[in-house]
Amino acid sequence: MSDAIKRWPCDHKLSDMVAHGGLLYLSGQVAENLAANTKGQTAEVLGMIDRLLTNAGSHKSKLLSASIFIPEMRDKPQIDEAWLAWADPQSLPARAVMEARLGSVDTRVEIICVATQ
Amino acid sequence: MSDAIKRWPCDHKLSDMVAHGGLLYLSGQVAENLAANTKGQTAEVLGMIDRLLTNAGSHKSKLLSASIFIPEMRDKPQIDEAWLAWADPQSLPARAVMEARLGSVDTRVEIICVATQ
Amino acid sequence: MSDAIKRWPCDHKLSDMVAHGGLLYLSGQVAENLAANTKGQTAEVLGMIDRLLTNAGSHKSKLLSASIFIPEMRDKPQIDEAWLAWADPQSLPARAVMEARLGSVDTRVEIICVATQ
Repeated sequence: MSDAIKRWPCDHKLSDMVAHGGLLYLSGQVAENLAANTKGQTAEVLGMIDRLLTNAGSHKSKLLSASIFIPEMRDKPQIDEAWLAWADPQSLPARAVMEARLGSVDTRVEIICVATQ
Repeated sequence: MSDAIKRWPCDHKLSDMVAHGGLLYLSGQVAENLAANTKGQTAEVLGMIDRLLTNAGSHKSKLLSASIFIPEMRDKPQIDEAWLAWADPQSLPARAVMEARLGSVDTRVEIICVATQ
Repeated sequence: MSDAIKRWPCDHKLSDMVAHGGLLYLSGQVAENLAANTKGQTAEVLGMIDRLLTNAGSHKSKLLSASIFIPEMRDKPQIDEAWLAWADPQSLPARAVMEARLGSVDTRVEIICVATQ
């Protein structure tokens, strides 16, 4: 594993993902289709995480931890439904769910995660 | 340090703890006795962290960082009281405390941490 | 890179920064001048991060990830203004912004970050 830092550009403020020492640090991912409900947005976000991990030669089975923020804790069952349809049952990451309002009022979920490359 | 990932199972959604490259990533820990006040729940959570770290051959003196979420910031003195009774004064982690509602209305504290094995 | 843990003391509760395995884990940084507006507090916090990183022989160009908590999401443009004036455009970290009340009502921003040494 190298000491080099590799960054996947997103915009002028942040990188979508940063790799260092065999670890991948992902920016908080939010859905683009904000008309979708919480379950739909979660499924879209998990797909975005899949694509980022694939871009780095990684995979959801290599997730170490995930922090999930949702503006309404009562939506947690919708999060879990999308999560269970997606997660690799043999390779579940550490996880935490907290209630927090997000960048737009229609954003129903944001997920930050760390994976190994 | 190996590239292997070791996971301590919790349920069908997440691992209680994940080890990789000499680091331990813990899931957000919350108390089981939700009738306890914030100080009591914090003491229980810190005991849960102790047990997880012990299971991985680690110890609270090897904590690197802790993120603490509490639904009422006015309860922070209770958090700190339990924390000070527990923390190793020679080996204090980086720490942050933020206000966030948690998985149940009676959950008064959730702690996410990273330690070295 | 050594397995040793180095800690930069802050107070009796936490370390300002912890180094291990070539990584730096910073405590949540908040401004001291709470009379400043959100942009001013953000600029102060980013300066604090600069100083901590310098103390460890690191630099903002080595940031891997940043989690930003603000009590009013409508203040995000002020955060971004200070962030853009500070960030190294060639070395942007992964980033996430969540709404959370902080340790005092006048604290307008808290930033947690991880960097490489």
